[in-house]
Amino acid sequence: MSNPAIARNLPLTLRETVCESDGEAVRRLVAATGVFSAEEITVAGALVEEAVPPRPNPEGYRFIFLEREGHFLGYVCYARTPLTSHSHDLYWLAVDPACQGQGHARLLMEETFRRVVALGGKYLFAETSGMPQYKPARGFYKAAGYEEAAVIPDFYKPGDAKHTYRRTLSANRTENDN
Amino acid sequence: MSNPAIARNLPLTLRETVCESDGEAVRRLVAATGVFSAEEITVAGALVEEAVPPRPNPEGYRFIFLEREGHFLGYVCYARTPLTSHSHDLYWLAVDPACQGQGHARLLMEETFRRVVALGGKYLFAETSGMPQYKPARGFYKAAGYEEAAVIPDFYKPGDAKHTYRRTLSANRTENDN
Repeated sequence: MSNPAIARNLPLTLRETVCESDGEAVRRLVAATGVFSAEEITVAGALVEEAVPPRPNPEGYRFIFLEREGHFLGYVCYARTPLTSHSHDLYWLAVDPACQGQGHARLLMEETFRRVVALGGKYLFAETSGMPQYKPARGFYKAAGYEEAAVIPDFYKPGDAKHTYRRTLSANRTENDN
Repeated sequence: MSNPAIARNLPLTLRETVCESDGEAVRRLVAATGVFSAEEITVAGALVEEAVPPRPNPEGYRFIFLEREGHFLGYVCYARTPLTSHSHDLYWLAVDPACQGQGHARLLMEETFRRVVALGGKYLFAETSGMPQYKPARGFYKAAGYEEAAVIPDFYKPGDAKHTYRRTLSANRTENDN
């Protein structure tokens, strides 16, 4: 992996177009965070590869990749929730552990809010586990303005609840929050 | 459409193997129920067509088709919930309106419980709308032993909540329930 710390003064760039090489970059990034299972790593990479043009991407997955001088620092994956008029799901948000604590996750999150609003969305949903290793994720969602919408005990496995968070978006509120 | 009432004394058959013609049969059936949107009808048919062998069916959708003398009476679509150890999702359950009230939905539901248990599943989740036209669906889930696990207001559209139901399964309980 590159050393993103070296280039810290160089500008960050956001990219939405998906390239063939993003699947492998995402698998490496998601594995490097140390909090995802082998199945989760495989799913994360597959979602990216299914969305490389001209593949049909029937689920409408959208991505934002955060890079610095071509180095892959993090990404987000989201999509409109099927069969809803204004709900969207946040599927993945991950940042390279070598450059965490620099506001990259917050930047990706706010950029996602803006794009969901531009798509006519009102809600963004995120789901995460109630296990101790996901406490930072739950804190991140709360700090980013999400409210806890539901908790389903034993969802992922015995003792491992699913927490569903909902962020209410509006063109004005989102602008003010940034 | 055929007239299933004519053949009411003939035996019912359950089939799991998906055929190319099932996509169109499912679209016709789901449209005939009168409770699903154009997008929902398209999604229902696409799920079936993506699962016709030898297509890869990466989401692992499973189907049970209920037929009488080759006439398509109803079906169910379910799958293991990704990233969980023992949760499954019920995606579709529909019965031809010409032969409702004969216990076909209950038969499909119980057969699904049995197969999820055989796959090692403990929970089956179903989601439906809080709108008045889905009141029979909500009553059906409660009668089939589901408990309401979560309600998220305004999920599908303003004023249209998502109700999540969970059925706890075990080899013994399911046998006794039948």
